[in-house]
Amino acid sequence: MTQKEWLEQIGGILEKVRSKKPLVHHITNYVTVNDCANITLAIGASPIMADDIGEAADITAISSALVLNIGTLNERTIESMLVAGKQANKTGIPVVFDPVGAGASELRNRTTRRILEEVKISVLRGNLSEIRFVAGLDSRTKGVDASEEDSRGGLQAARDTAQAVSKRLDCVTAVTGAVDIVTDGTRTLYLKNGVPALSGVTGTGCMCSSLVGSFCGATENFLSAAAGGILCMSIAGELAAERAKELGSGSFRVALVDAVSRMSAEILEERAKLDEA
Amino acid sequence: MTQKEWLEQIGGILEKVRSKKPLVHHITNYVTVNDCANITLAIGASPIMADDIGEAADITAISSALVLNIGTLNERTIESMLVAGKQANKTGIPVVFDPVGAGASELRNRTTRRILEEVKISVLRGNLSEIRFVAGLDSRTKGVDASEEDSRGGLQAARDTAQAVSKRLDCVTAVTGAVDIVTDGTRTLYLKNGVPALSGVTGTGCMCSSLVGSFCGATENFLSAAAGGILCMSIAGELAAERAKELGSGSFRVALVDAVSRMSAEILEERAKLDEA
Amino acid sequence: MTQKEWLEQIGGILEKVRSKKPLVHHITNYVTVNDCANITLAIGASPIMADDIGEAADITAISSALVLNIGTLNERTIESMLVAGKQANKTGIPVVFDPVGAGASELRNRTTRRILEEVKISVLRGNLSEIRFVAGLDSRTKGVDASEEDSRGGLQAARDTAQAVSKRLDCVTAVTGAVDIVTDGTRTLYLKNGVPALSGVTGTGCMCSSLVGSFCGATENFLSAAAGGILCMSIAGELAAERAKELGSGSFRVALVDAVSRMSAEILEERAKLDEA
Repeated sequence: MTQKEWLEQIGGILEKVRSKKPLVHHITNYVTVNDCANITLAIGASPIMADDIGEAADITAISSALVLNIGTLNERTIESMLVAGKQANKTGIPVVFDPVGAGASELRNRTTRRILEEVKISVLRGNLSEIRFVAGLDSRTKGVDASEEDSRGGLQAARDTAQAVSKRLDCVTAVTGAVDIVTDGTRTLYLKNGVPALSGVTGTGCMCSSLVGSFCGATENFLSAAAGGILCMSIAGELAAERAKELGSGSFRVALVDAVSRMSAEILEERAKLDEA
Repeated sequence: MTQKEWLEQIGGILEKVRSKKPLVHHITNYVTVNDCANITLAIGASPIMADDIGEAADITAISSALVLNIGTLNERTIESMLVAGKQANKTGIPVVFDPVGAGASELRNRTTRRILEEVKISVLRGNLSEIRFVAGLDSRTKGVDASEEDSRGGLQAARDTAQAVSKRLDCVTAVTGAVDIVTDGTRTLYLKNGVPALSGVTGTGCMCSSLVGSFCGATENFLSAAAGGILCMSIAGELAAERAKELGSGSFRVALVDAVSRMSAEILEERAKLDEA
Repeated sequence: MTQKEWLEQIGGILEKVRSKKPLVHHITNYVTVNDCANITLAIGASPIMADDIGEAADITAISSALVLNIGTLNERTIESMLVAGKQANKTGIPVVFDPVGAGASELRNRTTRRILEEVKISVLRGNLSEIRFVAGLDSRTKGVDASEEDSRGGLQAARDTAQAVSKRLDCVTAVTGAVDIVTDGTRTLYLKNGVPALSGVTGTGCMCSSLVGSFCGATENFLSAAAGGILCMSIAGELAAERAKELGSGSFRVALVDAVSRMSAEILEERAKLDEA
């Protein structure tokens, strides 16, 4: 497919998000949960957050997509994630998994493995350190950001890792970084939008997963959905930087949500830098 | 009472909120809790959030109002809500209850029933689907927004439902929607302010309950308090839309808090569309 | 040391925060946790929030500073705070403790005592009511703000209280208020920046503790680190008030984060009002 064809497809999904308003169930961290809810609304979907095990499955059963994010995992919510994930598989709705900080603690490592063993994932989205952890490679992460060591192999090594993960887990894998890689194991896209200011506000990764979840709630084409969610975030970052970067990171963050709320197929087509590998 | 008299009364309560700065204890959801705290400060009251059962009653005992919101209820905080609610009844302070998502899961339904059985509520605030659930009617909610089916009966049906709930629970019931209905079972007010953009940011319902709680902390007239809290939110929405809607939902949200922080008896009198039914 | 020398030292630490990007582990409240993460990023450090007892020590072990904040403490996170605090002592990284609402409930009082008994603190930061509670004095707090009664003794009484606490706990004590007091028990600084608008948004105290934690992650001079964190917050408040106070508290809050993200040694030197007692 040409870049134009990819972007037409992605733009079409965005329009479906806006018209269908899919309900996107999140079990996510309490640091950025408000941002996730607002970005989900901004793109046109409808967020719901319900993490008690007494209702996690019920809420999943009425949703169109499920986003699992282990940013502030705890014993209670880990079990809810598993229950919700299994319900999503049963109901047949997509699961987006964001293994925040995988590699940084034994609890995160163990939980990441459990979720991947017990739940069928549609899209795995993380930074390179997190995806390398999933791939079984030695990850050098210190915290929730990708480590520099992990990036030394360059784009090709990252692509190989993502493809291997996708093949093993039969899912779309999205590695976000300076260049984003999205692959289903066979087809691979490079996305080259974005600005450094995005790492100056918390939750841009989490919000990106929420956007991917919103897209997934409106299509069965998860490769394009993942690319669409990521492009919306990174293009919004560019637009926000143009408008507000000089003002500071508070204004940038407001402008970021603004730009997502005004995102359109036209803006995507105009600004997206997408190459098929 | 004429519209002018209602608004003078409501404006007077707003001024009392600003001078008395009532402490408003919230046990609420973690998605919008920061917005609830900021909107409580913006209207001039003082927020405190304490949900551990080991202190829920102590904190309620030093507060002027209690807001219970089940947006992200869990086994631990449900018990704290009950303890805090009973303490509020004992101390004699008003309880505002926001049954977020009642009808969407069995846990929410059961919890809503338990709170209404064990705690005397002063103001019940929700969307039509939530209030219909409390009324024992068949609610079609899918998530945390009111369903379209539930609105088909029109304004009169919604008013009848609200009045029946108020009579049964001996409380003020506020149904927020395109037209807001506030009733104590006998007297009923229609409030016609607001803009669609309010549903484009998360937590406007929760913030509305916080404002109602802030008003309730400064008066014993809960009908006017509920109307006042709702009017502040919906008029702030109009002012925010005038200033920021074109920019996007991030800027709208900032302008919304701005407008609440600058709300006055004069603005209320000038803009409020209030009719007694 | 002259004011100029103090500010050169503090400016130097700020530059180290920006270049070293210390990882600052927070176990904090869910009301303002997003603000804490964003302000930590804004000053140039890297936030991580992990409160499950299964990983609290692991995450502390890879961090450069630990911030403990009991704003919404609960049975689960109290234990995690103790485990993380002990790990911080073992690893040799500084612990900043913010006893939010100490004096307001028996749970907060008991937890404050336990943390101070079991964990060696580097910096204690609170309002006067909280610090008076730690000092064993009768605190009149009602909620999370300092009470007026507690302030009646004036600046000198507050300074004596802070110095006594510092000597007993062998830590830096920072009492924030109209005038901020920072002391290691021997040397004492008065900081006179800030604006009343800072108390119109939630979490400015919590954010201040995050900034102190960020500074502490880049130096072993905790007295200057505490002063630096506080000055960044209060000067940012002044800059935000100049830019946005007329707009309302929503805009003020955005401008506050902007100002922290643009803070520099030059701005500190130009605006800081610092006196050694």
